[in-house]
Amino acid sequence: MSAGNAATGPHVLRRINALAVLNALRAVDDLIATVSGLVQATGLSRPAVTRALTALTEAGLVEFTGATEHQVGRPASRARFRAELGHVAGIDIGPHKVLVMVADLSGKVLSQRQAATPADATGERLVRLLRTTLAKAAAETGVAPADLWSVAVGAPGIVDHASGEIVLAPSIAGWSGLPVTAELRGWLGCPVHIENDVNLAVRAERWRGESSDNLLFVQWGERIGTGMVIDDKPYGGASAAAGELGFIDLVTDLDAEPPAATDGLGAFERLVGAGAILRLAIQRCSGDVRDRLEATGDIAFLFDAAREGDEAALSVVDTIAARFARGLAVQLLLMDPQRVVVGGGVTRAGELLFEAVRKRLRPLLLAPVELRVSALGAAGVALGAVRMALDHVEERLTSSL
Amino acid sequence: MSAGNAATGPHVLRRINALAVLNALRAVDDLIATVSGLVQATGLSRPAVTRALTALTEAGLVEFTGATEHQVGRPASRARFRAELGHVAGIDIGPHKVLVMVADLSGKVLSQRQAATPADATGERLVRLLRTTLAKAAAETGVAPADLWSVAVGAPGIVDHASGEIVLAPSIAGWSGLPVTAELRGWLGCPVHIENDVNLAVRAERWRGESSDNLLFVQWGERIGTGMVIDDKPYGGASAAAGELGFIDLVTDLDAEPPAATDGLGAFERLVGAGAILRLAIQRCSGDVRDRLEATGDIAFLFDAAREGDEAALSVVDTIAARFARGLAVQLLLMDPQRVVVGGGVTRAGELLFEAVRKRLRPLLLAPVELRVSALGAAGVALGAVRMALDHVEERLTSSL
Repeated sequence: MSAGNAATGPHVLRRINALAVLNALRAVDDLIATVSGLVQATGLSRPAVTRALTALTEAGLVEFTGATEHQVGRPASRARFRAELGHVAGIDIGPHKVLVMVADLSGKVLSQRQAATPADATGERLVRLLRTTLAKAAAETGVAPADLWSVAVGAPGIVDHASGEIVLAPSIAGWSGLPVTAELRGWLGCPVHIENDVNLAVRAERWRGESSDNLLFVQWGERIGTGMVIDDKPYGGASAAAGELGFIDLVTDLDAEPPAATDGLGAFERLVGAGAILRLAIQRCSGDVRDRLEATGDIAFLFDAAREGDEAALSVVDTIAARFARGLAVQLLLMDPQRVVVGGGVTRAGELLFEAVRKRLRPLLLAPVELRVSALGAAGVALGAVRMALDHVEERLTSSL
Repeated sequence: MSAGNAATGPHVLRRINALAVLNALRAVDDLIATVSGLVQATGLSRPAVTRALTALTEAGLVEFTGATEHQVGRPASRARFRAELGHVAGIDIGPHKVLVMVADLSGKVLSQRQAATPADATGERLVRLLRTTLAKAAAETGVAPADLWSVAVGAPGIVDHASGEIVLAPSIAGWSGLPVTAELRGWLGCPVHIENDVNLAVRAERWRGESSDNLLFVQWGERIGTGMVIDDKPYGGASAAAGELGFIDLVTDLDAEPPAATDGLGAFERLVGAGAILRLAIQRCSGDVRDRLEATGDIAFLFDAAREGDEAALSVVDTIAARFARGLAVQLLLMDPQRVVVGGGVTRAGELLFEAVRKRLRPLLLAPVELRVSALGAAGVALGAVRMALDHVEERLTSSL
């Protein structure tokens, strides 16, 4: 019974109110609002808002800036969220790149740095690369890594939420079982959280306004993974292993043994992941396009050529669209979501590719679905990591009020 | 605000208490319990239980039978749920059979009748067949169809819950758009409900004790469909079209156009549905086994032969297990359920088949899963329909208290 009282006692209410006021302050563009504005935004009473602002001011999170501006009768108290008070970092570790974002407490990204992951990177080398990239991104914002308040890491693989480590990451050598959060925590001195990359991309979509309560998010890059939102809640499965579209097998002959994977990729990833697109493009294209693809390994040249009407490039886009639709149709037949949002590196192809995907998808489905390309592009995972780091900061902040 | 008051007013509480007492009474084997027993089973106070029993008695649902039995001091009031007061029917309409169950208000199945669906059955003929089968099952229990309190129908296809009709049923000719509930309602005069067959099978599993809150149920017969329970709630998808495993395509060459379906079956159904199993068995088996399969069209003979060690039959079982595992693996990679329960006609094969499925499944998955065969066999859909009909009866009963 005492736990029940604690969970509903007046200080919990104060904390909830403070969080509501903080969120309302952060939701306004210039982070400044009047008490009346906050009363309206939160639905709280004026005394409750004032009490929350006092607690937030005492904690240093809010300052009053209204001295210069007076209304007739009474001075307008203008509260400002001090977003510059602290910083967080969001990190996306992929098989080919490390992307680090440093943001202030309002979630505004102040700097970002990307580094290529060497193909033969061991876990140890990855941690080193991660540290230098993080240090550079932080320095650009004028922050020492040790001054970060919270860091979140997104990585492919299945996260053991109890230990906070990746337990299965077939795509990065030496990565499975590596105590990456412990390593970073020891170096940084702040809390470090880890989450499956696709789950973070879903979090970023929702943060940036995606409100469908029955959503399928597909991350399409080198790897292919999906995240589901069911009844407005992220769905992770019984072993936090749901959504592994990249591993479904549409390729192996039905009565044959599936071949053992040597590249760590799943069958569907090996078919339409960024690497497979590059291989098919090099195979079918010729001349300049082929040369550029071979030299850079960047599929952007394929999509450029297709947009310019190159027939070989267009045929690659159509083949990839048809194959991707085949796999996506499987998940749509099983999940029947209201909307599909596709993010990840391959979305740089733009509508050229996705119009073809929609066309190929339609005859394969029993129920209609809306498919759109994420506005976040390849930044989704890192941005979702920023959001996760902020969530943890907020939890600590408001629990200390 | 008045709606809020109505929903929490004292008569709502009385109704909830009456329902709790009714459920407790129905849960005991002989439908008889003492007031003390009901106090213990429901957690309600003795006065609340007594009030509920009075209301239930006035409604004719409960009678007291304790006159013969006295304890020292006070007479033991023994309440009995009058399950014989009314009857409901649950109907399973499949591509090959119509199965009707008639049950009393405790859910005890008193009679059941099955009829084969002619291959060329139009919607109208189906409705006629349904009426005669229902009439026979009811007569066996001594009830006229017009005296049924509630009927529920399970059918393959996507149900439009607003109109209460099947809007998409590719497997039964003339069935899509047929106003089957309106037809039956006009004839019977009682409420008739319709639901997707697999959803009803899931309901039956949960009724009969399946308590996993993250469950995948697979109906494996002529058709293949799945039902999901997520967070202890049935998940139907945005268009009530989730779980269509039968339609996933592991067969068509990736870069080919999927062939137009002429049999109404999905690609996976055409691969490992009961019909496909029969065709493969006739193709590979010889002698007596083949003769019996051809004469009866019953795959039970295949499984009998396999159990007796017939090599051709064993090879069919292994091929089917491998193919079924390939498709099921897809759904498991996407959904990551805690447990899989397989029901439907093919489960008559027993552990011989399902041990092979488990073995084939293991190397295809990233997370472990428990797979078991439903104890309900081919009766699941009709039983779930009985449960649905009862739920509606209870709703009406308790709302009139």
